Amino acid sequence: MDRAIVLLSGGMDSLVTAGIACRENDEVCFLHVNYGQKTQEKELECFRQLVLHYRPTQTRIVDLNWLGEIGGSALTDDKITIEDYQGRKDAPLTYVPFRNANLLATAVSWAEVIRANRIYIGAVEEDSSGYPDCREVFFQSMQAAINTGTQCPFPIEIRTPVIHLNKADIVKLGMKLQVPFEYSWSCYKDNQIACGVCDSCALRLKAFEQAGFTDPIPYAWEKQR
Amino acid sequence: MDRAIVLLSGGMDSLVTAGIACRENDEVCFLHVNYGQKTQEKELECFRQLVLHYRPTQTRIVDLNWLGEIGGSALTDDKITIEDYQGRKDAPLTYVPFRNANLLATAVSWAEVIRANRIYIGAVEEDSSGYPDCREVFFQSMQAAINTGTQCPFPIEIRTPVIHLNKADIVKLGMKLQVPFEYSWSCYKDNQIACGVCDSCALRLKAFEQAGFTDPIPYAWEKQR
Repeated sequence: MDRAIVLLSGGMDSLVTAGIACRENDEVCFLHVNYGQKTQEKELECFRQLVLHYRPTQTRIVDLNWLGEIGGSALTDDKITIEDYQGRKDAPLTYVPFRNANLLATAVSWAEVIRANRIYIGAVEEDSSGYPDCREVFFQSMQAAINTGTQCPFPIEIRTPVIHLNKADIVKLGMKLQVPFEYSWSCYKDNQIACGVCDSCALRLKAFEQAGFTDPIPYAWEKQR
Repeated sequence: MDRAIVLLSGGMDSLVTAGIACRENDEVCFLHVNYGQKTQEKELECFRQLVLHYRPTQTRIVDLNWLGEIGGSALTDDKITIEDYQGRKDAPLTYVPFRNANLLATAVSWAEVIRANRIYIGAVEEDSSGYPDCREVFFQSMQAAINTGTQCPFPIEIRTPVIHLNKADIVKLGMKLQVPFEYSWSCYKDNQIACGVCDSCALRLKAFEQAGFTDPIPYAWEKQR
């Protein structure tokens, strides 16, 4: 029997990853992490909607508020402004220090307790914003750390099913899997209406356009019309 | 300039590790993590005393209460009884699932923000209680994850200076470095007076005896005399 933990932020990539995990496993458990990000409230709302939609076997919401308190990222620190999209290739100010290592370590601890053998994370390497902890080479190292640092009698495997897809292909795959994109959140800036101009909104909008679909969530400019 | 973060639980091994870090670096910063362990209160008290003693440049106390809430360890779960010392070689019930990965991930995130280039952790492989995440092979994997998953411009190095020492040698080294053993806590069971019979107390007492020193902390049986 395969039991998977899905790290579900409420973003588009993790939602499609959840859709994949639901097909590949006998049981799925959803894990959401608050880390003091500015859009925490909206992401949590999406997570709750996705729980109602997918009905996972178990759910857990974990607070890593310290990760926001230490600062160092535009996603958590009010003193750092979130820039509009400029198509940069280096890691931007929205990089949250070593976030994915913390997310995976959290998921692995829980996996050991509930006997889950797979952990899904919706990281995207290509077409991403250049975060070092979204690259396959990082996940391979974390896999080695899991293999050597856990005591459960079976292997716990990290799965990153969308890591080499581009955003447009992620939208297409999500549409095929009929994932509820209306319950996903990508905007870095706002808790109510997506801004449409931050890095994350810009990549999302471009992805829907390239995939030939309409993004079902509302955007700020639609309100202004 | 070398700036180190020391993961300081308040236990004997991390205290001696702190003593070493203070000699090897220009600046040290102390990091303490609460994770819902039964002796959290006493460990925090030791940490505060050690801050007064060593006067680190920065300190941080992080709450990972979820790690206790998920259960799975006798250190955090009241439903699992802490056994008396029996000299077992397999990982005991006091193993906290993937704890050291969570501690390291926390320290690395902070290191990226405060520009620390070393992280000290007082793990002991030999003569330990058989925790998988205390072995050198695990730390090597985590080092690879740090090298691939961080974006800071310099390497962040994990240092485990006591990993291949036995407990008696750790006591001897601590005495040489004049670390304040009176502000350290090893007991798994109690918040006030060390029980003297749990795995951790038994190993500590044996270590002091073999090293030829008297442990300065009081034990439960001394009270009964």
